[in-house]
Amino acid sequence: MTQPIAAILDRIDAGQPAALDRLSALLRIPSISTDPAHAGDCRAAAEWLAAELASLGFDASVRDTPGHPMVVAHGGDGPRHVLFYGHYDVQPVDPLALWDTPPFEPVIAGGAIRARGASDDKGQLMTFLEACRAWRDETGSLPCRVTVLLEGEEESGSPSLVPFLKENAAELRAEIALICDTGLHDGRLPAIVTQLRGMLGEEITVTGPEMDLHSGQYGGPAMNPIRVLTRILGGLHDGTGRVTIPGFYDGVGAPPDAVLADWEALGFQEEAFLGAVGLSVPAGEEGYSALEQLWSRPTAEINGIEGGYTGAGFKTVLPSRARAKVSFRLVGGQDPERLRVAFRDWVLSQMPGDCRAEFAGHGGAPASAMAVDHPAFEAARAALGEEWGIEAAFVGGGGSIPIAGHFQTILGMDSMLTGFARDDDRIHSPNEKYDLESFHKGARSWARILGKLA
Amino acid sequence: MTQPIAAILDRIDAGQPAALDRLSALLRIPSISTDPAHAGDCRAAAEWLAAELASLGFDASVRDTPGHPMVVAHGGDGPRHVLFYGHYDVQPVDPLALWDTPPFEPVIAGGAIRARGASDDKGQLMTFLEACRAWRDETGSLPCRVTVLLEGEEESGSPSLVPFLKENAAELRAEIALICDTGLHDGRLPAIVTQLRGMLGEEITVTGPEMDLHSGQYGGPAMNPIRVLTRILGGLHDGTGRVTIPGFYDGVGAPPDAVLADWEALGFQEEAFLGAVGLSVPAGEEGYSALEQLWSRPTAEINGIEGGYTGAGFKTVLPSRARAKVSFRLVGGQDPERLRVAFRDWVLSQMPGDCRAEFAGHGGAPASAMAVDHPAFEAARAALGEEWGIEAAFVGGGGSIPIAGHFQTILGMDSMLTGFARDDDRIHSPNEKYDLESFHKGARSWARILGKLA
Repeated sequence: MTQPIAAILDRIDAGQPAALDRLSALLRIPSISTDPAHAGDCRAAAEWLAAELASLGFDASVRDTPGHPMVVAHGGDGPRHVLFYGHYDVQPVDPLALWDTPPFEPVIAGGAIRARGASDDKGQLMTFLEACRAWRDETGSLPCRVTVLLEGEEESGSPSLVPFLKENAAELRAEIALICDTGLHDGRLPAIVTQLRGMLGEEITVTGPEMDLHSGQYGGPAMNPIRVLTRILGGLHDGTGRVTIPGFYDGVGAPPDAVLADWEALGFQEEAFLGAVGLSVPAGEEGYSALEQLWSRPTAEINGIEGGYTGAGFKTVLPSRARAKVSFRLVGGQDPERLRVAFRDWVLSQMPGDCRAEFAGHGGAPASAMAVDHPAFEAARAALGEEWGIEAAFVGGGGSIPIAGHFQTILGMDSMLTGFARDDDRIHSPNEKYDLESFHKGARSWARILGKLA
Repeated sequence: MTQPIAAILDRIDAGQPAALDRLSALLRIPSISTDPAHAGDCRAAAEWLAAELASLGFDASVRDTPGHPMVVAHGGDGPRHVLFYGHYDVQPVDPLALWDTPPFEPVIAGGAIRARGASDDKGQLMTFLEACRAWRDETGSLPCRVTVLLEGEEESGSPSLVPFLKENAAELRAEIALICDTGLHDGRLPAIVTQLRGMLGEEITVTGPEMDLHSGQYGGPAMNPIRVLTRILGGLHDGTGRVTIPGFYDGVGAPPDAVLADWEALGFQEEAFLGAVGLSVPAGEEGYSALEQLWSRPTAEINGIEGGYTGAGFKTVLPSRARAKVSFRLVGGQDPERLRVAFRDWVLSQMPGDCRAEFAGHGGAPASAMAVDHPAFEAARAALGEEWGIEAAFVGGGGSIPIAGHFQTILGMDSMLTGFARDDDRIHSPNEKYDLESFHKGARSWARILGKLA
C-alpha cells in the first residue's frame, strides 16, 4: 500500500479546529476515578470514546469491570498488529480555588487548552485517535491492525486492570503496545522512554487516646499521635537524603555507563528544571544529579498528612488519631510487596506501646525496562525525527506507568512509550494544560509512526 | 449581720429545677467565640447574663470591645469586695457527628446536663450566680460587695481582655478575684488551685515548590515541605520526652518538697487517669510521675498538622505547603515571648535552603503561682470542707488560665481558683457534660464561701 503520508498530515493540519472541539467534549466529562461520586462520569467518558472509535470504523465496546469500565476497540487489518493504550480518567481537582477557570470547562488560551486531564491523559490519547481519523479519511482504513485499550482507573491504582488483561489476553495481545502518557524531553525533544520507576502507596493511621483530649488536662502524660507520626516519618530520610528503611535499596543498581552518557548528552538544565517550580537545590540523595535522582534513584515521599485541629484560630487538642499517605518510587529490581512489608515493620518497630498503627495499601508495581531493540523503537525514532526536525532521545522516566510491566508479564508483549506533554503542563495540579503544538504535532507524529510500523 | 446560711442552702436545694432551667437557657445560645459566624450568639449570651444579673439586683451592663463584649456587674455592699470571673464563650463543636444529641440542645440524663459549655464554663459560672440568687432571696442582699466580670473570648485567646482590664482597672479592682473554671480533684475532692501552667501557641507554614507537583515528575529532586515539617517537628522531643528547643527549660524549677508531698498525699491514680482515655504509659519526660508531668513540667504539643492530599484514595502529589499548629504549656518562670523567639529560631535553623517558614502567633501567657497565704484561701478551704465533708486539697493545674496572671500584673490583685468540673466532663470534646451534683453543690459551696469571706 502506498502511504500518502503528506496528504494524511495535511488532513490533520486542516482538521485542527474540529479536533479541538472533540477534545473539548471529552474534557468536559469530569471522569475523576478516585471519587465514587464521579463513577457515572467515568462511564460517560468511556461511552463517549467508544462512540468516537466506532465513528472511525473500529469495532468498539465498553466493557464492565468491578470498577470503572474499559474501552476496547479493533480496527484496520494487515500483517502488523499494535495495541494502543491510554486512560480516560483524571486526577481530583482540589484545591479548586487555585484554578483560573473551572477545571471541566476547557479554555483555549496562550497556545494551550486548559482543563483537568488536558495533558494527563485525554489530550495525549486523542492525538492517537486523530491520527487514526486522518488515515481513515484519506485512505479509507488504517495502515495496520490496531487494537485500542482505554482504562478508567489509572489515577486510582488500576484495581481492575490485571484481572481484565488476564481474562482478555488473547483478544488484547499484539506485537507491541504503544503508550502515550509521557512527554517531550525538556519541552522540546521528542522522547522515547526506555525505563520507568515503579510505585508503592501506603496509608498509615496512628491512634493514641480513645478520644480527642484537652492539652491542659492531659498534655504531658497523654501520648499525642501526631508526635508519633511526625517522629517516625521525620526519620524516613537520613541527613544525606537516603531512605532509612532497612533493605530499601536491595535491588537498586547503577545504570550502565552508556545510558548515563546518553543522559549526560541531553544537556539537562537542572537549574531551569528546578527553577520553574521555585526551587534550586536537588533534594534527593547527595551525590546524584537531579536527572539521576529522577530516573534512576528510588524515593520515599509523604503525599498527605492530617491530624488534630487545622481550621482557623487555635484549639489546644490532643487528637485521638493522625494519618499520612506515603508513596515510594521504585527502580531496578526493588520488589514492591517486599518493601510494603519492610515499611510496615519499620513503622511498627518505632510505635510506642500506647499507640497502634493501621495500614492500607494503595497499589504497587515494580520498575520497568523497555525492549529498546524491538523494531518499533527505531520506527518511532525515525518518525519522530522527521516530524520534529531533531533526533528523538531515549530517556528515563521518573513516573510510574505500571501498564508496561503488566503487558510484559501478562501478555508477553513489549511496550513503546512516547508522548508530547511538557514539564509545565501542571498535571495533577490546578490549571492543567496541553499545548496546542503538542496536540497537533502529536497527531502528526502518530500518523507517521503508524505509517512506519506498517 | 447574722448569716442564715442554713436557710440559704435550703433555698438552693429547693430551687434546683428552676436553676437548671436557667442554665439550659444559657446553654442553648451557641456562643462559639472562635467562629466569626457566631458573633451574634456571643452578644446574645452576654445580654442574657446581664439581664440575669440585673434580676439579682446587680447594676449590670454589656460592654463593647473590638471583639466579643464583656459583662460587668456590681452588687452588694460592705467592707469586703470580691471580683468574680467566668467566661460565657464555648469551644467549637466539631466533630459534630460524634455528639449523641445536638450540642446546643441541653439534655439532662445520667445525673448530668449535656451540652457544649455545660462544664466549660457556663455551668460553673452559673453556680456562682445561683449562690448570689439564694443570698439575695433569703437576705435581700449579698453578704459583701461583689463585682462580676464575664468574658466572651476565653476560648479564642482573649484578645480584648488585657486592654479592657487596663481601661477599667479602677472599676474592676477588688480584694481578691474568685475564678470558677477548674475542677474537683480526681472527681471527688474539692480543690483549690495553687499553680497553673502558662501557654504559648504557634502556627508554622512551610512552603517548598511554588505549586503542587507530581511525585513522578519531580519526586527526588523537589523538596517536599511535609518532609521538612515532619523532620523538624519529629525532633521536638528527644528519646526521653524532653523538649529539644535550646533554652526551653530556662526558668523551670522543681516544686518545693512540701508541695510534692501534698501531691503525693492526694493518692493520684495514674493508671485510672490514663486508663480512662485508653492509655497506660505516661508520655511526658522520663523520671516524672503523670501528676508532675501535668502540673509541674512544661510540654510541647502538635495540636494540628495538614499538608498534601488527605481525601479518599491516593494522589501522588508533592504539595507546595504544609502547616502545623504547635502549643507549649509553661511552668515556673518560662517566658512565653522569649520561647516564641527560641521556637522560631530553632525551626528556621533547620530549614533547607529551598523552603521557607512563616509563623503566626496565637497568644502567650506565663505560668501562675497563687498567693496561698491570702485569707480567702483559708475561708474557701473551710467552706469547701463543710460542704463536701472532706478537706479541700491545694492542687496544681495542667491547663492555663491566663486571667489570674493578668489580674496580678494589671490590677495588682490575687486570685483564688476553685471549681466543680470532673475529668470526665469531656470539655472541648463531643458530649461535654456537667454533673448535676457539681452544679448543685457548686452553688452551695459558693454560698458558703461568700459567707466566710464576708
